[in-house]
Amino acid sequence: MSHRPRAAIVVTGSELVRGERTDRNGPFYAREALSLGLQPERIMIVGDEPGDLEAVLREASDADVCLVSGGLGPTHDDRTVELVARVAGTPLRVDAELEAHIEGVSRAIAERLGRPYADFAPGVTKQATVPEGAIVVGIAGTAPGLVLASGRCVYVVMPGPPGELRRLWPAAVESAPLQSVLARTSAPGRRVLRFYGASESAVARALAEAGGDGDGVEATICARDFEIHVDLVVEPGAESRADEVAEALREPLRRHLFTEDERTIAELVLELCRDRGLRLATAESCTGGLVAARLTDVPGSSDAFAGAIVAYSNEVKTAALGVPAELIDGHGAVSAEVAAAMARGVRERLGVDVGIAVTGVAGPGGGTPAKPVGLVHYHVSAPDGEKGHEFSLAADRDTIRSRATVAALHLARRVLTRSRHEDV
Amino acid sequence: MSHRPRAAIVVTGSELVRGERTDRNGPFYAREALSLGLQPERIMIVGDEPGDLEAVLREASDADVCLVSGGLGPTHDDRTVELVARVAGTPLRVDAELEAHIEGVSRAIAERLGRPYADFAPGVTKQATVPEGAIVVGIAGTAPGLVLASGRCVYVVMPGPPGELRRLWPAAVESAPLQSVLARTSAPGRRVLRFYGASESAVARALAEAGGDGDGVEATICARDFEIHVDLVVEPGAESRADEVAEALREPLRRHLFTEDERTIAELVLELCRDRGLRLATAESCTGGLVAARLTDVPGSSDAFAGAIVAYSNEVKTAALGVPAELIDGHGAVSAEVAAAMARGVRERLGVDVGIAVTGVAGPGGGTPAKPVGLVHYHVSAPDGEKGHEFSLAADRDTIRSRATVAALHLARRVLTRSRHEDV
Repeated sequence: MSHRPRAAIVVTGSELVRGERTDRNGPFYAREALSLGLQPERIMIVGDEPGDLEAVLREASDADVCLVSGGLGPTHDDRTVELVARVAGTPLRVDAELEAHIEGVSRAIAERLGRPYADFAPGVTKQATVPEGAIVVGIAGTAPGLVLASGRCVYVVMPGPPGELRRLWPAAVESAPLQSVLARTSAPGRRVLRFYGASESAVARALAEAGGDGDGVEATICARDFEIHVDLVVEPGAESRADEVAEALREPLRRHLFTEDERTIAELVLELCRDRGLRLATAESCTGGLVAARLTDVPGSSDAFAGAIVAYSNEVKTAALGVPAELIDGHGAVSAEVAAAMARGVRERLGVDVGIAVTGVAGPGGGTPAKPVGLVHYHVSAPDGEKGHEFSLAADRDTIRSRATVAALHLARRVLTRSRHEDV
Repeated sequence: MSHRPRAAIVVTGSELVRGERTDRNGPFYAREALSLGLQPERIMIVGDEPGDLEAVLREASDADVCLVSGGLGPTHDDRTVELVARVAGTPLRVDAELEAHIEGVSRAIAERLGRPYADFAPGVTKQATVPEGAIVVGIAGTAPGLVLASGRCVYVVMPGPPGELRRLWPAAVESAPLQSVLARTSAPGRRVLRFYGASESAVARALAEAGGDGDGVEATICARDFEIHVDLVVEPGAESRADEVAEALREPLRRHLFTEDERTIAELVLELCRDRGLRLATAESCTGGLVAARLTDVPGSSDAFAGAIVAYSNEVKTAALGVPAELIDGHGAVSAEVAAAMARGVRERLGVDVGIAVTGVAGPGGGTPAKPVGLVHYHVSAPDGEKGHEFSLAADRDTIRSRATVAALHLARRVLTRSRHEDV
């Protein structure tokens, strides 16, 4: 399938294998491996039981690179380093320089907690015990990040906290053993096409009609909310094949294509406003602040985003957004008329140029035969004009709220670009 | 380690193993397995390359139950059923009843898309081809969920979309093969203790001083935002040991303990309001609607939650919340004074009883030496009184926003319970 060096990912943590927490390190490692020209093959999540962890490490050591996270703490439950050494067939030894470093950190902690250093000493020696020949690429708290070359596999061993792992990762990439693997490969190219309002099967069909993937182009199609994301991973030399595939997707789906880069719909809407010096605000009922949260998730959003009024109750719709009580009585809070009044109301009340409004029934309660759970009206009011839309979706509360958020942002994009293509 | 039947989890999807999407099915399966009395051992995430998937299924078939998701679609890339059959040593056959069912669904799709049914027929036969003896527990779109007993392993094979998997799962649990495994075990008890404002190491120390886990009680400690969640999994017969462990945690950490059940801080705050007939609103700057989104994430939140004003710009803070411009000029938008004025302002403007306000520097831009990135002020104004607080945290934008959200909700809980214990 691929000539690329293979990467296996091993994540350890009892809370992860019990489903109490969702792993973030596996996906990070996978994305990084892919972008460096490695082929991520599997992500294995395992608890701290030594037999399980050793078995998984043994399977992973069949790959060219084995990316490991977690189990580096000072206690006896943290066995990752010992087991990596065993699987790699490398003896353990205490690294004196590392031990001195960890001792310094631990003495400071002991002092802060008012506890004798002797309580920490065994943990310090344990954390400074590493496989012979391992490179220490940095320390997170008292846990070292390590790179170990053994036989044909290079092990990268990193602490479990995602922020620490990300911080130490660049030094691991720069280490000689990993660089020698990377010298055998080259980073693939990447094309991104993002569609809104097209069905996943329509995108899959267009891809199949373009000859599918292969010939140096691998495609993934991923549906998220109402968006379809197509990622093409392009081997060196396959650029013109990638151009063909991209054009074969663009051609039948042009009216659904909204970006060919990594920008999110929130970023696109903010840029459209920023480019034209427009200020933006949201008026939200069922989404309860999610549209605003999505917009303010973007650093620098304050350039264009002024604020939001979350009008969950009808009283707030009237008092804070100026929606006439009679309009709510006559059409219901979930109606095209109220959505339009909310969008205009937030423009006026917050003194902005563009208003995005959402009102719907997110469920599970509150549905009626006329206004079922999953019915959402959204409306955008802008200097260019106004547009309202609705959808009805049999789904759970989270899905309805999330789709409503995305749909409202896409409607704003459409109004702000005054697209002639209705469906984009 | 455990006498429980072991569960291995296999999740397939190229976008998952490339890190483009984070898997939700593995954690779901793991939690369900645990609660049924199985021991989840590993979660393996693999792409759709048949060799990789077969190897992982073969390893997983060593467990008593193998929980599989993904790869059930109509195209040649979707090989899960075929590979499960191969690993289980079971021949494939077309299930006529299932085929008729899928054909009905597909004919409706063909009609809606205006395409000939002949385009769909090969996919229908492919999706109706299942291992001999497999039980069809339901259909998601055109993909069947299957349970197959083979040798000592029971395979559960479910479609990849998380909502569909969750919908079909109960029928899989009720199936005879899985019930016969479950008859050999019993669901463990579970205790939950959730702390706010305690350090993870303080909780770990209390646990260690209680003798750690073992003797039928397994503990996991998990830090989320500023909360520490302790879960105890209790074997039948170990209830009194679990009582001891729970009390050993409660005793030194009582002032940080905020719940002993699964309720989130948003649910607790809504209940505190609801119980006393109070209406609640938020005034948010750096959190940009996240506090409101968290509250409205709770079904039925409209009982107590009226709305929110997201005042991202200073103009909105003044116009919509009535924060005097001089106060902002004098103290800065990120200050205890402005947080207090925002909390009072939203109470007045939205006519509610309780106002929660947050203002801070989420970064990465906007920091100054006096007001660095990570400085957040939050304030709660309620009929019982008022309270303001702040934190300063060197972290990324997401973390700062998320912690600010949780901190503000905990402050509301504290004000609403008028706790004598300052730190809870």
